[in-house]
Amino acid sequence: MALIVQKYGGTSVGSPERIKNVVRRVAKYKALGHQLVVVVSAMSGETNRLIGLAKEMQAQPDPRELDMVVSTGEQVTVGLVSMGLIQEGLKAKSYTGAQVKIITDSAFTKARILSIDEQNIRTDLANGYVVVVAGFQGIDKEGNITTLGRGGSDTTGVAIAAALHADECQIYTDVDGVYTTDPRVVPEARRLKTITFEEMLEMASLGSKVLQIRAVEFAGKYKVKLRVLSSFEEEGDGTLITFEEDDKMEQAIISGIAFNRDEAKITVRGVPDKPGIAYQILGPISEANVDVDMIIQNVGVDDSTDFSFTVHRNEFDKAMDILKNQVQHHIGARNVVGDNKTAKVSVVGVGMRSHVGIASKMFRTLAEEGINIQMISTSEIKISVVIDEKYLELAVRVLHKAFDLDLEPV
Amino acid sequence: MALIVQKYGGTSVGSPERIKNVVRRVAKYKALGHQLVVVVSAMSGETNRLIGLAKEMQAQPDPRELDMVVSTGEQVTVGLVSMGLIQEGLKAKSYTGAQVKIITDSAFTKARILSIDEQNIRTDLANGYVVVVAGFQGIDKEGNITTLGRGGSDTTGVAIAAALHADECQIYTDVDGVYTTDPRVVPEARRLKTITFEEMLEMASLGSKVLQIRAVEFAGKYKVKLRVLSSFEEEGDGTLITFEEDDKMEQAIISGIAFNRDEAKITVRGVPDKPGIAYQILGPISEANVDVDMIIQNVGVDDSTDFSFTVHRNEFDKAMDILKNQVQHHIGARNVVGDNKTAKVSVVGVGMRSHVGIASKMFRTLAEEGINIQMISTSEIKISVVIDEKYLELAVRVLHKAFDLDLEPV
Repeated sequence: MALIVQKYGGTSVGSPERIKNVVRRVAKYKALGHQLVVVVSAMSGETNRLIGLAKEMQAQPDPRELDMVVSTGEQVTVGLVSMGLIQEGLKAKSYTGAQVKIITDSAFTKARILSIDEQNIRTDLANGYVVVVAGFQGIDKEGNITTLGRGGSDTTGVAIAAALHADECQIYTDVDGVYTTDPRVVPEARRLKTITFEEMLEMASLGSKVLQIRAVEFAGKYKVKLRVLSSFEEEGDGTLITFEEDDKMEQAIISGIAFNRDEAKITVRGVPDKPGIAYQILGPISEANVDVDMIIQNVGVDDSTDFSFTVHRNEFDKAMDILKNQVQHHIGARNVVGDNKTAKVSVVGVGMRSHVGIASKMFRTLAEEGINIQMISTSEIKISVVIDEKYLELAVRVLHKAFDLDLEPV
Repeated sequence: MALIVQKYGGTSVGSPERIKNVVRRVAKYKALGHQLVVVVSAMSGETNRLIGLAKEMQAQPDPRELDMVVSTGEQVTVGLVSMGLIQEGLKAKSYTGAQVKIITDSAFTKARILSIDEQNIRTDLANGYVVVVAGFQGIDKEGNITTLGRGGSDTTGVAIAAALHADECQIYTDVDGVYTTDPRVVPEARRLKTITFEEMLEMASLGSKVLQIRAVEFAGKYKVKLRVLSSFEEEGDGTLITFEEDDKMEQAIISGIAFNRDEAKITVRGVPDKPGIAYQILGPISEANVDVDMIIQNVGVDDSTDFSFTVHRNEFDKAMDILKNQVQHHIGARNVVGDNKTAKVSVVGVGMRSHVGIASKMFRTLAEEGINIQMISTSEIKISVVIDEKYLELAVRVLHKAFDLDLEPV
């Protein structure tokens, strides 16, 4: 008998019919003698519907009131899931975040969990109940309803698993696990049986939207065994996200190829090579709430250097405007150039820590296809390059093949 | 400066546009220097949508889980109303029933309010906030979300007004007050400036669906000054529901004509005239959850009497079945006859306490039109008759005229 936390996303509970599928799965696990906590998101489309209503009242809805409105989405789902379970003859009980006492800070719309009172849930589990908890929400110390921000239901699932010391936290999504890359780009992409937390973090942040990055961080911090599974398939073990790197010893050096189509690159040329210049360039950008991804500055020549970074394509024009009108003359840069037809491709794998030659193999593979590399950035377990977006699919395919990701690891 | 509780029903907050009208009205009162608590229902249609979802999970939804789901309707509205107020430059803060601490019993879907903690609301009011409270809901002592049943938002409004000792509780609906009778039947029907609680109770229970009867009882018990107003008209004082009968001294003897189309009458003939017989007839009826309205038993002749009562037309067949199959032979009655083509008309007014001749005037008026009276029942402030339904409109019109209800009282 194990204590399992299962988290179901919006698509998995998108209609009464789909909720009934969730109910059947939960009942199956319960029949095996497990204790079950089920964390659910709002039905797909519901959160957007509620935000739409809010925006009709206020173009920029008041954050406290927005959380009041949006948190109802999950509250509806927990009630419906419980009804389904009771209809199946199980004992079930739903909880809002406030009822559990998932205490968060007061950063409305993007709150962080401070503590979870797991006592009521434990009592219910001991009494044979399936406990159904609203994801994505909590209350602050003053009793205001808060939400954790988009994708926060994953975080709720992991946090409850951590608080209960659950044996496993299963995240059900519309994919059946984490793949070596996007199967829509590379049909030979293979589901990974395991992936380390660090790799998962790189994969998630690089655009493999399987799991929310905060949830992965949380799971890593509290050593929660996390498994990604499909809610639409009866069988399958999904992908287990491990925190023991040892498991990876005999596996592939590279776990996957991540990519991001929406990358735009900007270069400020002829920047005086002196302290404080990076802040003078990026300060105004971050004040305008533009997220910056890669940042590159090369060694300067003649007291002058080029400073490059990438932003989301949607924010390219805004960033260029700021640089040309507020920054360029102020810092005495020569000019500002940009390209919003770029993409980022990364190879990710903890194995590259102990293996040399990954970077050169990557660069050679791209060169053989005539793909020019515009920017390079590396971390301990990944190498990212920015290339012309028209080569993106080709680059992903050839890298996937070059690193033998289409083959089962031996 | 007064402390005013305003309650807006589902139609009044049925869309973002309508909510903006509510916001403008609240802002107007606030600008006059009043302290405002706004109690709102779910947007019209929302509660039914949620119940529909629930019924897709369970034909008879689990009551606790149903309340979990349905209570989200008002939670959405309070958030939207607050956003609207903040957009207008006011300070506003929304509360769920749980956040106020509206403590109820645990009778899910039809809970009764036990206590209200008004402390937070008082503090917010003192700090200049408009406080927006979700109607229809509370929590029980274990922290479960409860609802007060349909129309419970009126009760929430009155209960909060009572807890705060508010100067007035204004109930905004889609009519502009309480009328002498239904204007669709009698175009000359006149809005009443005041009506007593007792009259209002009779009018409400007799089918004038302006206010929930529980809310009126509550207001009477706690001496809350209640006013019914239209949320769709800018001007107008609506109808004030008073608990001081003195106000009525110079007014009309009769306040209004109430009626109910859905009345079905049943008579059990030749009932042995002995103790316990009424219970033997009505016991099985009430066990089958059939609500009984009028009950009449005349003086017996030769140890035998006739026993009559009325039920809602939808429950006529069920009641007849029970009487014929379970009751008639058991008690030794001669037979059971019924008629579901009847209607009830009542004249209501506290003035009849001190004035004689109201009943005879009513009976004469009906007789002059050739309308046969099938049953009569009276209370201290009303006289009800059951007649053939085809005469209903005629009866209401002639009574309205006979009692001078089309004329302003002098």
